[in-house]
Amino acid sequence: MQMTDLIVKKRDGHELSTEEIRFMISNYTSGVIPDYQMSAMCMAILFKGMNDREILDLTLAMMHSGDVVDLSGIDGVKADKHSTGGVGDKTSLVLCPMVAACGMKIAKMSGRGLGHTGGTIDKLESFPGFSTALSRREFINSVNKNGIAIIGQTGNICPADKLLYALRDVTGTVPSIPLIASSIMSKKLAAGADVIVLDVKCGSGAFMKTEADAVRLAETMVRLGTMAGRKCSALITDMDQPLGHSIGNIIEVREAVSVLRGRDEGDLLEVCLALGSEMLVLGGFADDRAEAGKMLMRTVRDGSALEKLADMVEAQGGKREYVYNTDLLSNAAVELKAVAEKSGYIRFIDAEKIGLASMHLGGGRVTKESAIDATVGVFLHKKVGDRVGFGEVLAQVFGSDYEKTESARREIVSAYVISDEPVEKPAFIKRIITPAG
Amino acid sequence: MQMTDLIVKKRDGHELSTEEIRFMISNYTSGVIPDYQMSAMCMAILFKGMNDREILDLTLAMMHSGDVVDLSGIDGVKADKHSTGGVGDKTSLVLCPMVAACGMKIAKMSGRGLGHTGGTIDKLESFPGFSTALSRREFINSVNKNGIAIIGQTGNICPADKLLYALRDVTGTVPSIPLIASSIMSKKLAAGADVIVLDVKCGSGAFMKTEADAVRLAETMVRLGTMAGRKCSALITDMDQPLGHSIGNIIEVREAVSVLRGRDEGDLLEVCLALGSEMLVLGGFADDRAEAGKMLMRTVRDGSALEKLADMVEAQGGKREYVYNTDLLSNAAVELKAVAEKSGYIRFIDAEKIGLASMHLGGGRVTKESAIDATVGVFLHKKVGDRVGFGEVLAQVFGSDYEKTESARREIVSAYVISDEPVEKPAFIKRIITPAG
Repeated sequence: MQMTDLIVKKRDGHELSTEEIRFMISNYTSGVIPDYQMSAMCMAILFKGMNDREILDLTLAMMHSGDVVDLSGIDGVKADKHSTGGVGDKTSLVLCPMVAACGMKIAKMSGRGLGHTGGTIDKLESFPGFSTALSRREFINSVNKNGIAIIGQTGNICPADKLLYALRDVTGTVPSIPLIASSIMSKKLAAGADVIVLDVKCGSGAFMKTEADAVRLAETMVRLGTMAGRKCSALITDMDQPLGHSIGNIIEVREAVSVLRGRDEGDLLEVCLALGSEMLVLGGFADDRAEAGKMLMRTVRDGSALEKLADMVEAQGGKREYVYNTDLLSNAAVELKAVAEKSGYIRFIDAEKIGLASMHLGGGRVTKESAIDATVGVFLHKKVGDRVGFGEVLAQVFGSDYEKTESARREIVSAYVISDEPVEKPAFIKRIITPAG
Repeated sequence: MQMTDLIVKKRDGHELSTEEIRFMISNYTSGVIPDYQMSAMCMAILFKGMNDREILDLTLAMMHSGDVVDLSGIDGVKADKHSTGGVGDKTSLVLCPMVAACGMKIAKMSGRGLGHTGGTIDKLESFPGFSTALSRREFINSVNKNGIAIIGQTGNICPADKLLYALRDVTGTVPSIPLIASSIMSKKLAAGADVIVLDVKCGSGAFMKTEADAVRLAETMVRLGTMAGRKCSALITDMDQPLGHSIGNIIEVREAVSVLRGRDEGDLLEVCLALGSEMLVLGGFADDRAEAGKMLMRTVRDGSALEKLADMVEAQGGKREYVYNTDLLSNAAVELKAVAEKSGYIRFIDAEKIGLASMHLGGGRVTKESAIDATVGVFLHKKVGDRVGFGEVLAQVFGSDYEKTESARREIVSAYVISDEPVEKPAFIKRIITPAG
């Protein structure tokens, strides 16, 4: 078998066989197939697509290119969640404790962020002492004891995806549904959960700009998960503005705790309830979404969700009191206010610009080696549809020095579009994609 | 400027600027842009194409990636010819002496063959002592004295094309008109001739299988040559069967001499007259094709074309008597006859199969390092449209040992398709493409 022939086959719009896809991924991972052939293949896939069978084979080949996590030591139904990433996305911090409080097992491996803000791991490390470097046995034990543990990626998970992801990034071959879907799902399948719920962000601040593209990606991933024998569904959620109010690390932790305390009832809670309901229904913990939603709200009202977060923080080396009193977490050195330069209604908040402002403040990583400043960030007081008066505060900006903070403040003001006409609040959940359709 | 951005631009169907194309070629040639980005770009170009301005910029950038030959030391109009390659293509051996005998200057750099048979250089080296490794000054002097010299590629001509050609070969990015046209024309422009005539082969034995594709390639190259300030036109010629009767090295030289002696009047002569007429008309040596054709036929009848070949062979280290008496050239050790297994009319001769048979005999190169056996080859007695009786000789097979020759004989029998119904002789010249259209 020759890689050149496989490229030609795909280029001409033909189907690659299971054997051909396995040959390609195993030889690329081992270095036998060079990058210059793989990048040409990726471009051919981008133009010619893949059918479901090919995408499943690609996903499984990537999944089996490295370690597959064995969660059989954990009793009960294991649930996992993946978000395609957006600005201000702290759903895992809220969702996972809620679902764990309902009895599902959360054994989650999460990534560090590269971009606007830190990832879930970075946010959790805002708790002093919190460690995400648990051994496999500590991880399993912790989930069995508390029902929840979130750690960093360990071992050799999907090395083929690591190589491909880096290659696609520099060869213009990122926006291809088969390549995105197989990249995400190979990692999710290797992570071993029984129930996988996907949050596919859609809008100006997301990778998928249109709802049609988001639906195509979501449908593909749900089919993949189902074909691979997992319970899987997806939400299409709005990312035309940042999710929730905060963008940063410590301030996102504060917002998450606030939601878990029942003090915040906006889009973040709504998205977490929807994702959590899917998990509970798929896992057989609730008969329908209405029942699941009630179960989840109960974990907020009775404090059991917040307790799960505290249990996890304590089990992984932090102190529970930081969960119950997030004022103990550090504060930024400088705080400025972005105010409205005209009165009216918020029509649009450019999530991308807000994310970049947060990164410029030091809240995100420019390269893998960058250190994150957990205290900096942005708190949005006004969201789309809100009324604002001239001079009223749109957002607070938290930074480490005056100049950077002032510059970010200006970016944030420019990210807000204010109209004279009233603006309707957008729907946060656009679609639910289930295996049945 | 970032190569990734240029790939994305082309992937999305946008035009690359002159500056961007120059950046890409100069940095690829110097090794700054890696193969894996260039192969993704080639695949994007394959799918999205390039407009005339982009192809011209690409061609000129590749041309200027290395040395550009200065032929200003040669008096008169310099003509060059390129063929896209086919089985049994020995047109240069016939055409160049004919045109030189009409007063045009042939200062030609030619390649070695990789594939079915040797290239022009390999065929000329069938003459004992013949050298294609002339210095630049010897080359110029030889053309000024005899009107003709054919040498191997010297110096650093189009290094960008060498790299790209090798990369495209292993990344499924060969069949792209912009990439093929710029590859051919960058070398032709760098070789310095005033008049360039292109022979674009079309049919089952050629790279371009359909006439439509051949016309598109020819039109693109003629526009390129014209935009670059050269006189340029192209023929679309038939390659549904091998050209002429012989496939090999010494036997092709014998056939070429036979045509130059006026002893052979088939498709090979017809194609050479058509190519030569274009050259003479473009170079201002004849008013129209009819006049040019007469001039060329005169060089055959009066022996002046054969004399030009003898002059060149002598000037480059060979002996003229080998030209006048090609029986002096070596013969193959084994000769077998392929005979018809039924009577009828030749409907088709699979040129590809004949070429492979010749390569298996040792007449072509499998890798750049392969040595060629100049004596082996195939002589086709029957061509498309000919009548053949049961047991009549279709072709002679010349080899170095019995087994290989017998195996090639069987391949050749299987390459012939014989029908019961009479078959019309095909037209050898399908189209003439001129700058005017």
